[in-house]
Amino acid sequence: MNVQDFVQKALTHQKEPKEYEKGGKLLSKPSAGSSWTKVSCPCCFSERVEPLVLVKLGGKVGPETKRWLIKVIGAPQKDGGAALLAHPGEDASGDIIVVSAPRCTLLRAAEELGLCKTYRSGDMEAFSYNDRDNFKDSGVFLTLAERQYIVKYELDGLRVQRDLRIPGLPESRMLQKRDNIWQKLSSAGVVVDTFPLHNRKKLKDLGEAWYSGNQLAQPLDSVNDYFGSAVAFYFSFLDFYTWSLLTPAILGLAISYFSVAFFSSEVKKEMVDSVSGSKVIINDDDSGPMISGHMLQAMFSMIWSTVFMELWKRRSSSLSYRWGTMNLAERFAEPRPNFYGDLGVNPVTGRVEPLFPEWKRDLRMVLVSVPVVGLFLGLVVLGMMCFYWGEAQVKQLHKDWNSLLSQALLYIPSVLHIVYTNMLGNVYRNVAQSLTEYENHREESAFENHLTAKILVFTFFNNFAVLFHIAFFKQDVPLLRKRLASLLIVSQLVNQVTEVVIPFLVDRFISAPHRTESEDDPKEDKFRNQRTLPVFPGLFAEYIELLVQFGYLSLFSCVYPLTAVLLLINNITEIRSDAYKICNLFRKPFSPPVANMGVWQVAFEVLSFVSVISNCWLLLLSPRLQELCREGGLSSTNVLLLAVFGEHVLILIKFIMAALIPDEPDWIRKKRDQMEYTSMQALKEQVNAISTDFIV
Amino acid sequence: MNVQDFVQKALTHQKEPKEYEKGGKLLSKPSAGSSWTKVSCPCCFSERVEPLVLVKLGGKVGPETKRWLIKVIGAPQKDGGAALLAHPGEDASGDIIVVSAPRCTLLRAAEELGLCKTYRSGDMEAFSYNDRDNFKDSGVFLTLAERQYIVKYELDGLRVQRDLRIPGLPESRMLQKRDNIWQKLSSAGVVVDTFPLHNRKKLKDLGEAWYSGNQLAQPLDSVNDYFGSAVAFYFSFLDFYTWSLLTPAILGLAISYFSVAFFSSEVKKEMVDSVSGSKVIINDDDSGPMISGHMLQAMFSMIWSTVFMELWKRRSSSLSYRWGTMNLAERFAEPRPNFYGDLGVNPVTGRVEPLFPEWKRDLRMVLVSVPVVGLFLGLVVLGMMCFYWGEAQVKQLHKDWNSLLSQALLYIPSVLHIVYTNMLGNVYRNVAQSLTEYENHREESAFENHLTAKILVFTFFNNFAVLFHIAFFKQDVPLLRKRLASLLIVSQLVNQVTEVVIPFLVDRFISAPHRTESEDDPKEDKFRNQRTLPVFPGLFAEYIELLVQFGYLSLFSCVYPLTAVLLLINNITEIRSDAYKICNLFRKPFSPPVANMGVWQVAFEVLSFVSVISNCWLLLLSPRLQELCREGGLSSTNVLLLAVFGEHVLILIKFIMAALIPDEPDWIRKKRDQMEYTSMQALKEQVNAISTDFIV
Repeated sequence: MNVQDFVQKALTHQKEPKEYEKGGKLLSKPSAGSSWTKVSCPCCFSERVEPLVLVKLGGKVGPETKRWLIKVIGAPQKDGGAALLAHPGEDASGDIIVVSAPRCTLLRAAEELGLCKTYRSGDMEAFSYNDRDNFKDSGVFLTLAERQYIVKYELDGLRVQRDLRIPGLPESRMLQKRDNIWQKLSSAGVVVDTFPLHNRKKLKDLGEAWYSGNQLAQPLDSVNDYFGSAVAFYFSFLDFYTWSLLTPAILGLAISYFSVAFFSSEVKKEMVDSVSGSKVIINDDDSGPMISGHMLQAMFSMIWSTVFMELWKRRSSSLSYRWGTMNLAERFAEPRPNFYGDLGVNPVTGRVEPLFPEWKRDLRMVLVSVPVVGLFLGLVVLGMMCFYWGEAQVKQLHKDWNSLLSQALLYIPSVLHIVYTNMLGNVYRNVAQSLTEYENHREESAFENHLTAKILVFTFFNNFAVLFHIAFFKQDVPLLRKRLASLLIVSQLVNQVTEVVIPFLVDRFISAPHRTESEDDPKEDKFRNQRTLPVFPGLFAEYIELLVQFGYLSLFSCVYPLTAVLLLINNITEIRSDAYKICNLFRKPFSPPVANMGVWQVAFEVLSFVSVISNCWLLLLSPRLQELCREGGLSSTNVLLLAVFGEHVLILIKFIMAALIPDEPDWIRKKRDQMEYTSMQALKEQVNAISTDFIV
Repeated sequence: MNVQDFVQKALTHQKEPKEYEKGGKLLSKPSAGSSWTKVSCPCCFSERVEPLVLVKLGGKVGPETKRWLIKVIGAPQKDGGAALLAHPGEDASGDIIVVSAPRCTLLRAAEELGLCKTYRSGDMEAFSYNDRDNFKDSGVFLTLAERQYIVKYELDGLRVQRDLRIPGLPESRMLQKRDNIWQKLSSAGVVVDTFPLHNRKKLKDLGEAWYSGNQLAQPLDSVNDYFGSAVAFYFSFLDFYTWSLLTPAILGLAISYFSVAFFSSEVKKEMVDSVSGSKVIINDDDSGPMISGHMLQAMFSMIWSTVFMELWKRRSSSLSYRWGTMNLAERFAEPRPNFYGDLGVNPVTGRVEPLFPEWKRDLRMVLVSVPVVGLFLGLVVLGMMCFYWGEAQVKQLHKDWNSLLSQALLYIPSVLHIVYTNMLGNVYRNVAQSLTEYENHREESAFENHLTAKILVFTFFNNFAVLFHIAFFKQDVPLLRKRLASLLIVSQLVNQVTEVVIPFLVDRFISAPHRTESEDDPKEDKFRNQRTLPVFPGLFAEYIELLVQFGYLSLFSCVYPLTAVLLLINNITEIRSDAYKICNLFRKPFSPPVANMGVWQVAFEVLSFVSVISNCWLLLLSPRLQELCREGGLSSTNVLLLAVFGEHVLILIKFIMAALIPDEPDWIRKKRDQMEYTSMQALKEQVNAISTDFIV
């Protein structure tokens, strides 16, 4: 009692203005009833409480409901609370609750999540609450992103211990035992929003190190601190990918430069071919090099995409070690809030929680999800076919009529196709969400991965179907080249504009005037203002942009050697614009700790695999090779057989290369072994201790 | 001292004849100086000592050397001994030492090896010496194979603690610190042989349950008990594979039966084609079914080989759980005896041992092993080409001369080729051994796997090069069919004869007369007699036979539907003959605990992958399909394109199927999670205990 009073006092009486401004840690007006809830253990006493998360309540929520909610947030976990700290904002009737977390809750959750931290020995070790004193700087060592995620984790995990009526709400909103409180409150409109708060000072420092100057390297560790590992992995990958583009860019430039004379004549020839529609080669130019740039680029692409992915895997595992996410224990933690199932004892952890059999989920995936996704992919193909059919019809019509009306009609198929594709995309997104929800994944990451995979397959199909069609059915290299170049230039311009310029303008001239902040504003208003920012849309769009880029590069770049150069230029600006965007234009997102890029890693690997096939094929279409074959007197069937054989050999080489380059650097593997060995030893020692106890 | 004397007494004075005969556990004549060494801890006192391993000494080994060796074997591990029990045989000057192991040594080694045993709760848990009382039947629960392997493991691990001269050996044989004792003794001719002893009674029971009756199921658990998990995995796989052959066998019979009329006409037609050398089809028979047996079988083979491998993986992981080898800790144990490197502290376990950097090994593999293996594969191809060239030359010669001499000459290329292939094979085996030794693997299993992989690639190449040549270059289906049928029938007959009949005859009529045992023979002589049996040649030949079979079936069976039937008949006898062989015709082998089939698993998977490609190709060669295409007016290039497309889709389907069928059954995954969770918890608890200690 004494200690708690003391803490309470310390918390409420710290009010030198200097402190507020410097650290931004305390709320300003500690009037009656508006102070932090009490911490439940003496060790968590701290002079300054850092506001981490803002909970926005619905307009009609009465003060008794708010008081109850604050009590639940502040209650210890054994009483069914979240063991966090809550602050009611300016007064008890306001519509926000500011939430923070005491040290003990943070550390216990860090252990539960399986975060690794620097041990006394300098190595990363799985954090253990009981051993906290042996970890370096155990007081402040959780990053801001981790602290905020833990608050969300605890709030999401709140469950009712016995049937309960929430004060101020009608009878119909009764909570049943084991109901998820936060979910119920959200659906009842009591909680409208829960989002992490920006820390202006840290954000300013981060921005300066990240996108303000001319620096080449990104401050990835600080990004991880501030935005969490999911965002940091995206930027690390972007970084790694951009630097890796240097080699193909240089090669592309060299090919374009050295073979410009030969190349231009070749292109001219092809143009003539494609325009005339015939495939007769005018054999006037026989002085070209044995291996054309096309072939060189195709072979290089295959090797590059494999080596790039293998090296990234190594980099990724080093980063995961560095950021302490290599040993996440998500599958031992509580299931995600939306997970449902019959209550039972988890056979692994022994805790009572909803259980859902694996085979049921598999069945749902195979019998429901796969066919539905296949259906939508079929609809994409159908749309493409209708588009081609319509175009042919309209062209025919235009030929027959040749009027202004028929000229206008020419645009109709494209417009219809674009509308159709967009509608399909929107419907599909909702369907994918419902399907993944229906699959009922236990872990948040599994849910995310399955959802991403579904949308990914569709988007990929949407983006590449046309190019594949041109390359493999029409077999029209010049058209492919034209299409690729225009896609690269147009889509990148459009992306940059829609992603950065428009949000920036909106932010500056439309939203910002409503959000003018002055130094004198109470903290609460500053917090509330963050709600006017749009919600961060997630990294999906960013990743898919990279994936499509990578696809252009690894699948088709041999027909247009400047692809890598264009991408390199684009990405160097992309790094800065993405950084600016996430820092300034959106609310701070919650970011769970992750150990890698998840399903994106797989997507890139699949692409790098497909690139072997694609490049083999494009190599076969290479005009120079076809010429050589014709000269050598090989029949087209034999050439094709050779190509198939070559493709299989190349795929084999790719597999061998992927197997030979270890996925983890040697030192990471050793550390991992060491961790395993330590926990194995611990198991034995523990048993030893118990048996000694018995003897004693 | 008191306890040890008592144990000693108990060991030497137990001499009721009944006991000897019943358990076969005690040596017969405990004369002066010929008794078991003393156990070093009171808990290991046992009334009966079971002879496990026989060490055969060289003829010129003096009694003082033998005494020294017995002392080393019996000394506790802290004094540099093996903590085993040794018995000098009939007297101190005899040339054998019988070795056994006390309970404590066995249990500690079981923990070190990471064996799992049934815990009190009924689950398998990693065995822990300190927790031994909580494991079921902890007194006798190590299997015979495990006990014998542990004896070998301890003997192999003996290292000199300080420079030492072995009594009775010349100065030149001085042992330096950290020298491996057993290795040095073997090279000095002191130890000639170390092999595990058969247990006649257990062997008789096993044989009765295994191959004597008409039983369908094999007693796999008993096999694992007696021969160890490596042998048990082989027989389990053989079992699983044989039962899996039922489906393709039934299909093959059905195809042969229903389409016998159509088929025979087709075959006849093909014969005509191949004899006349032309590819003109006499279009007299158009009433065949749309899909021929050939096509059906090809498609079935692809699916079957995938499903079979996936299901076997699940079965394999269940077996590994059942036999307690799912959690082996080989990489934390001592390195294998031949491993060399600079002495240093192992960063994982903290023990002082030789260290050898990973990158050096990788470098050796890439720069030395891969090119050398490639060279030998090249020599195989060269041999094949020379053979074809020689055959053509000789045929030409015979045509020109047409004499008896030239008739005889016809056989020369084949004979030369066989001699060449055999010589190459022998040279290669030695080269592979040296290469793998040079790669310097730390773990025994890694060494075995790399050695097996090297020989495997070569043998596979040797076996299938000709068939692939016929199928893909000559494109001659009837020849392929003939070749396959003759290979299947001849090679199986030859195998059965060389593997079983000859050893059986040799054993019965040549070796056995020298080995007549009577009940009155002293135990020592019975032990010594086991040395007259040949050494068990390992499972390599058995596995390669299965692999080649599996290759015939999955790669080429569509051209000869009865393949599966022949293989099924062969394998049913193979199970019995292999069982008989390993029980009766050879010495008992040492068998380290293993968690799966190791590199063989990979080999079978690669084959099942190649089978997709091969079947696609053979499908394309199918006479019925070619006819259909010709009718449909498709050009051969287009057909080929379709086939390539189909192949890629099928490979995709195969990958998806392999990904969708989990490698482990659900319950195994749960158990594994549980074990991980327990050891994670233990790590925390241990730290907790330590911190509490500090507080106390």
